[in-house]
Amino acid sequence: MLIYIDKDEKTPIYEQIYIFLRQKVLSGSLKSGDKLPATRKLADELSIGRNTVDKAYQQLVAEGYVTSKVGSGFAVNKIPIEFSVSNQGASSTHSLEKVKTQPVSIRYDFSHGAIDNSIFPYKQWRKSINYALTLMESYSCIHYPRRQGEDSLRQSIALYLQRARGVSCNASQIIITSGQQYSMEIIANLFECSSKRFAMEDPGYDGVRIVFQNHNYRVMPIPVKKDGICLASIQSLNTDLLYLTPSHQFPTGAVLSIAKRHKLLQWADDTNSYLIEDDYDSELRYDINPIPSLQSLDTKDRTIYTGTFSKSLSPAIRVAYIVLPQSLMDRFYRYYYRYNSQVSFLHQTVLSHFIASGNYEKHINRLRTLYRKRQNDMLAALDTVFGDTANISGEGAGKHLLLTLKNSLPQDELIKRAENIGIRVYSTKVNYMNPADCPYSQILLGFATVPTCELKSILEELHHVWSKD
Amino acid sequence: MLIYIDKDEKTPIYEQIYIFLRQKVLSGSLKSGDKLPATRKLADELSIGRNTVDKAYQQLVAEGYVTSKVGSGFAVNKIPIEFSVSNQGASSTHSLEKVKTQPVSIRYDFSHGAIDNSIFPYKQWRKSINYALTLMESYSCIHYPRRQGEDSLRQSIALYLQRARGVSCNASQIIITSGQQYSMEIIANLFECSSKRFAMEDPGYDGVRIVFQNHNYRVMPIPVKKDGICLASIQSLNTDLLYLTPSHQFPTGAVLSIAKRHKLLQWADDTNSYLIEDDYDSELRYDINPIPSLQSLDTKDRTIYTGTFSKSLSPAIRVAYIVLPQSLMDRFYRYYYRYNSQVSFLHQTVLSHFIASGNYEKHINRLRTLYRKRQNDMLAALDTVFGDTANISGEGAGKHLLLTLKNSLPQDELIKRAENIGIRVYSTKVNYMNPADCPYSQILLGFATVPTCELKSILEELHHVWSKD
Repeated sequence: MLIYIDKDEKTPIYEQIYIFLRQKVLSGSLKSGDKLPATRKLADELSIGRNTVDKAYQQLVAEGYVTSKVGSGFAVNKIPIEFSVSNQGASSTHSLEKVKTQPVSIRYDFSHGAIDNSIFPYKQWRKSINYALTLMESYSCIHYPRRQGEDSLRQSIALYLQRARGVSCNASQIIITSGQQYSMEIIANLFECSSKRFAMEDPGYDGVRIVFQNHNYRVMPIPVKKDGICLASIQSLNTDLLYLTPSHQFPTGAVLSIAKRHKLLQWADDTNSYLIEDDYDSELRYDINPIPSLQSLDTKDRTIYTGTFSKSLSPAIRVAYIVLPQSLMDRFYRYYYRYNSQVSFLHQTVLSHFIASGNYEKHINRLRTLYRKRQNDMLAALDTVFGDTANISGEGAGKHLLLTLKNSLPQDELIKRAENIGIRVYSTKVNYMNPADCPYSQILLGFATVPTCELKSILEELHHVWSKD
Repeated sequence: MLIYIDKDEKTPIYEQIYIFLRQKVLSGSLKSGDKLPATRKLADELSIGRNTVDKAYQQLVAEGYVTSKVGSGFAVNKIPIEFSVSNQGASSTHSLEKVKTQPVSIRYDFSHGAIDNSIFPYKQWRKSINYALTLMESYSCIHYPRRQGEDSLRQSIALYLQRARGVSCNASQIIITSGQQYSMEIIANLFECSSKRFAMEDPGYDGVRIVFQNHNYRVMPIPVKKDGICLASIQSLNTDLLYLTPSHQFPTGAVLSIAKRHKLLQWADDTNSYLIEDDYDSELRYDINPIPSLQSLDTKDRTIYTGTFSKSLSPAIRVAYIVLPQSLMDRFYRYYYRYNSQVSFLHQTVLSHFIASGNYEKHINRLRTLYRKRQNDMLAALDTVFGDTANISGEGAGKHLLLTLKNSLPQDELIKRAENIGIRVYSTKVNYMNPADCPYSQILLGFATVPTCELKSILEELHHVWSKD
């Protein structure tokens, strides 16, 4: 295998090797089980130091692309391929193979991406659809929707964000996308000519990490503490983009302290970097009032604010949005001036009417009350069933909790045993750049769709199957 | 300005320079009016031949990124930035500036992207929406839609394509996207590790060209003749991808002859290249029966078939699809296994019901009858008004014609004069890699939304304003 490296390039050589090989794996030209060239051999070929090659290989190991087999060098891992319905943070272990071999049918799913359908406001939604259809019928002709999104929807979102999240923006900065990952695709494209470095919380949302990896960004993991992302590791960073979830860190549930928020904004301004704020769960705060967005504190135009309707309304809606700093708008137009919108005109009009009519905020309030109760029930049930044998974290917001069992089985085994009795629980390993950093017996439990009345008995089933040796 | 080139890289050096500079322009770091480094100076800096630099600059000139000013070297052109509603093939000249300076309000628009709203089957569409909503309400919980698209929709499309277009495929090969350009984004991503060369018809759909240029592909234009793309220029090509519109070449309207179809498939097989078939207008054939798709002749799995509902149903729908060859499915899963679908579950269910109920094909038949009549009226009116002073081409299909005036004004002047009296006609310059290749006085006229009864008087207005000196 020929590897092209450019010694004059500013990207370090080990990084060039790392990017080259990772791309080969992702593209499938390096398949599961394939061996990487021996470090010594490759080092000679490229006439570089062997430790440089090693550094690249270690990075690939850390990110789970390859495994180091004692005595037999480095081999490519199986990259899981998932057919089935996906959830944010869903375990990537439902591989193609698994689907083929008909798994046990799932009776209960602790997914945190799915929503309880009985919550969805169909009545008001139908109203908005009728409004939108009647509006459309009144037009003489139908064009492509505006590439940035319909004015009416962007206006509704701007007003809502100002009111509910303190975001200072106007409709012209808002871009409507077909989901959080496509928002990230747009951002990745806009920074195509940057140093191609991307820093993010670790653990963090792997669905975002993969987007930037696919775009050949070098992803730099930043540890997360109880009060959010660890600043010490940031000072030394050389990156254009830092992705974080300040309101409700995914998956740990940490809240970014106000002190850290100000320091981060200062850092961004000093280093000319941009902060990507993913405000995904912001409205679902139970213990305190929703925390104002990071963007609302930003006086220097350094925050790219992103949000989605997947959590607050439905993941089936496929509408998300970016609030771009003014300084990036020109870049957006240059790249996207010939593109059409990703979201249907009808859908945008429905959503805009739904928000403008006040039904969206009413819905959020219902949701908050409901999920608060569900979380409390969940906490109570967990306490009854697991007591001191487990730690629970991430409470106070969102639709999931982290359960960490004391001296128990490894995560994969816990997930497998649950799956075997028809209960799906989720991995947090996928959220770590280096899966080895993941707490040994940690499980992610969403509580949005599991029937409260059966909660205790389901957890008892889990406790039972997890206790057995 | 520092330019990084890699002399060991397989990409020719002139191409590296070309790609580097183009990216600078697209990203805005090189702005309108900025000078490129003098060829001699750059050649010395990089210690390469001056003609190498020249070759790169000529490419940039040809593609309209820079202009060569006698005596004063090369300067960056203004890249148009469009706010307003976009159409496939819409003139890219509605720049940001223009929108600011309030143009004359448009009374008549010869757009070919827009549709006459009275044609849209609202009654049946409402039926399908009610079906989809009722279906959704019956679910206990709502997940993210499947990343490839809902099974029901992919099934409906597969059956329709087999029936109507002779496409041999099954649902598992179909990927639902939010528009033709996003289909192209996916293809561009899947070939990220290829030679990054992309060949396409010239003239051709600039909305596709820009996607591959944005992804740093080297775009190679292939001339188009009366019987479709020119094969002579293809034999020598070294490319992984060739994009074409066989049923109704955009914008010329040429039909790819069957002989050429077979030769192309042979070429693709011999060279391990893939043909991207854009079947956008295929159903709207008036003179003969719809022409079977290129994919239907392909026995070697070399055709990537793409289609959209923008032309046949509505551009506001934002649903398109790719039929991937089996040989590329694995690549797709590897890249996209963690992504969610771009299209809302409701929308997919509505469309799938609309197709399955037979209403889609009924609608297409109505459309064909209606547009056939409109095209005939248009041809008659054009003949009455312009007679021998113009040539008309592209008849027999689709929703637009090409009008080429004899010894008349340049295209831009024709468009400007029309715009000044509130009539919007469209440019074909944007469809040429090298705008200089565009016929001097050619205009693109869509006839889908202009009221037939007024057609003659509108054309007379145009004829009048175009005659004046």
